[in-house]
Amino acid sequence: MKQKRFILQENELPTAWYNIQADMPIKPMPPIHPATKQPLGVDDLAHIFPRECCVQELDTEHDFIPIPEEVLDKYKSYRSTPLVRAYALEEALQTPAHIYFKNESVNPLGSHKINSALPQCYYAKQEGTTNVTTETGAGQWGAALAYAASVFGLEAAVYQVKISMQQKPYRSSIMRTFGAAVTGSPSMSTRAGKDIITRDPHHPGSLGTAISEAVELATTTPNCKYTLGSVLNHVGLHQTIIGLEAEKQMTMAGEYPDVVIACFGGGSNFGGIAFPFMRHNLKDGKKTEFIAAEPESCPKLTRGEFRYDFGDEAGYTPLLPMFTLGHSFKPANIHAGGLRYHGAGVIISQLLKDGLMHGVDIPQLESFEAGMLFARTEGIIPAPESSHAIAAAIREAQKCKQTGEEKVILFNLSGHGLIDMSAYDQYLNGDLINYRVSDQDIEQTLKSVPE
Amino acid sequence: MKQKRFILQENELPTAWYNIQADMPIKPMPPIHPATKQPLGVDDLAHIFPRECCVQELDTEHDFIPIPEEVLDKYKSYRSTPLVRAYALEEALQTPAHIYFKNESVNPLGSHKINSALPQCYYAKQEGTTNVTTETGAGQWGAALAYAASVFGLEAAVYQVKISMQQKPYRSSIMRTFGAAVTGSPSMSTRAGKDIITRDPHHPGSLGTAISEAVELATTTPNCKYTLGSVLNHVGLHQTIIGLEAEKQMTMAGEYPDVVIACFGGGSNFGGIAFPFMRHNLKDGKKTEFIAAEPESCPKLTRGEFRYDFGDEAGYTPLLPMFTLGHSFKPANIHAGGLRYHGAGVIISQLLKDGLMHGVDIPQLESFEAGMLFARTEGIIPAPESSHAIAAAIREAQKCKQTGEEKVILFNLSGHGLIDMSAYDQYLNGDLINYRVSDQDIEQTLKSVPE
Repeated sequence: MKQKRFILQENELPTAWYNIQADMPIKPMPPIHPATKQPLGVDDLAHIFPRECCVQELDTEHDFIPIPEEVLDKYKSYRSTPLVRAYALEEALQTPAHIYFKNESVNPLGSHKINSALPQCYYAKQEGTTNVTTETGAGQWGAALAYAASVFGLEAAVYQVKISMQQKPYRSSIMRTFGAAVTGSPSMSTRAGKDIITRDPHHPGSLGTAISEAVELATTTPNCKYTLGSVLNHVGLHQTIIGLEAEKQMTMAGEYPDVVIACFGGGSNFGGIAFPFMRHNLKDGKKTEFIAAEPESCPKLTRGEFRYDFGDEAGYTPLLPMFTLGHSFKPANIHAGGLRYHGAGVIISQLLKDGLMHGVDIPQLESFEAGMLFARTEGIIPAPESSHAIAAAIREAQKCKQTGEEKVILFNLSGHGLIDMSAYDQYLNGDLINYRVSDQDIEQTLKSVPE
Repeated sequence: MKQKRFILQENELPTAWYNIQADMPIKPMPPIHPATKQPLGVDDLAHIFPRECCVQELDTEHDFIPIPEEVLDKYKSYRSTPLVRAYALEEALQTPAHIYFKNESVNPLGSHKINSALPQCYYAKQEGTTNVTTETGAGQWGAALAYAASVFGLEAAVYQVKISMQQKPYRSSIMRTFGAAVTGSPSMSTRAGKDIITRDPHHPGSLGTAISEAVELATTTPNCKYTLGSVLNHVGLHQTIIGLEAEKQMTMAGEYPDVVIACFGGGSNFGGIAFPFMRHNLKDGKKTEFIAAEPESCPKLTRGEFRYDFGDEAGYTPLLPMFTLGHSFKPANIHAGGLRYHGAGVIISQLLKDGLMHGVDIPQLESFEAGMLFARTEGIIPAPESSHAIAAAIREAQKCKQTGEEKVILFNLSGHGLIDMSAYDQYLNGDLINYRVSDQDIEQTLKSVPE
């Protein structure tokens, strides 16, 4: 019988993260101050984030960064995650391709987010921080952060987009179970929130409002640091534990991926699985293809521009060099809430610019169709975000069927969809639609990018 | 650093289930016909269930029953589940005990139920069945059955308790995602359902009504078989994959359990983890203690009587020799829906009678307190059912703290609670209460047991 799952024993777990910045042929451009346009250093960023995260953010020298013993200890309570050969999916597709997925859905809280929440909270604690804060949309990141904070004895305050809080009440319950204070944003607890509510009492909230409130709380509270679930370099660094494990597990399977795929919101899950394999393209002459699957409704990789732009809607963050649709871009209300972000992380943006990876955009209905097929064949109901990666993998597998190629396809199953069942209900009832953005709309929102 | 997780590689998976009936000092008494009081044989049961399941049900000879290749192949897509040393929980309790849990929450659909759904559907398919039907309360079993049916190309019809369907809509969405037809019970689709609705148009449904409808559908539809998620011997047999894996994994950990604990509804999850270890009590002189954790509101093991009783509320099933509260017993509406059953499976009842295991009853609030502590220490939000096992394990660990004993405690984490967050919400809001059953109530419902 053919082997299906590949698991590392505890003593085989990677003990360092991979920092692709050290190996990039063209280094990422620095974050800059919106007013002075000067590059920002560790000291500037450390007002907001844990200092060690800022050091990692700007580190272009060290290719491997040791995972602190205490973080590794926590990783060991749930890692490695399985690498699974998706034989049943292959059979359903009648493809000669070999499809593998890395199953991050079995992590605590059901997604890859915990891999970065743990080190961010660990570093915060080490530096004497007592409180952490963050924003969350659908709540995957907020839940992971709430758990990680409780692990390291920190108080967590999470600003959750108000409309998401109402739509997915289970996720705020999860955060509360771990002891986090969850506030719907915009709220009356910050100046930013009050301003917004004064202007618009019924504002439904957005990641923009939630970021503003969380950053304000962090900068006005002693011993409080802000944490982020994606976009930034250090978040992607922590997520490379996924790809480093997958690399060893592919070796167990006796294969090496021709194609590596992940869904794409800010880039941490994509970078997590892709960078360790991209290393071998950069250094060992491998020719793996890297595909980031973004939603058709938020196509920054395939239709955005490479520009210095704000990381948030309101324009409070440093300027980052990124592929962007303009920070005023408002993505349609698709169910893959984690992919509704206007820009791509700095490292990814540089790699895309240099032709080392590419994006594909997936219509919402295609993503759900792929998710349904995956559920019925592999028995795991995927998060709507992850279904974008599945859809891209299916496209590749179908190409193989036409050409007869036995390509090895690896994708990251970033999370399960058990808290998103209302989305599946709507799909089954035929109530979902696609949202294609017009060129005019993108042209319009790109005007919000500062000169 | 101490090892936390123990995982079997695929070639180490057990290839046969363990049938404790072969080793029991006193064999279970047979199911009997309610009217004739004659023992029922395979042919009698095979009108309702897949024949091979009936053979297993009554097999008191073979101690190991090979797992069919096709089922093993499906097991390999998610098994082994991890055995985890709960260091963080131990630390929180300041106990010298070594606490291990078998993590069945990472299975497809989030619980142990899939382990028996797969073989039941496989056997049904092998025998030329095209349709399967079942009842489900909260929906864990229905979801597992729906997936297993889709795996083996069977049509599934699930009768879900109407009130549960309304309270936990996500679980019916999950079943529909796998293509199952889900009907709230009582329904107008069966004679039994129509009778009930005619008498009481607003009947909220119960496992009793749902069983009646599913059994009627199975017996009046060509090529349709009924499947069950617990109680019966063959279901417990399939679940022994849990304990057989755990046995190998405890060896990897260099320990052997002094105490084995599982929550208790009908007995399949308890039998699943306990029987393979109980084998060594029966054959090799081991002295492991086996504790079944039942809810205080449904105390058939601790306060029920050993009698021949019906398996369902309505009295449509054969009579089974069981510890029972009387089939008319209506458990309080606790959140651990999977434990709300009036009787114990036949094998367990005999083992309890013979003093080879014992039960403890856990108040609802203690179960949630235990679940919260487990979530915050180990990062997994447990199903309310599983929290009963955690509570019992905590009691044992606290005894060790007092005595200084370094006992090895193993419990089964039968499922996660991500679909049950509304229950945690109510707990956090202080809205949950305990339900202790009075002696008079039990005396009353025991009168429903036939003479």
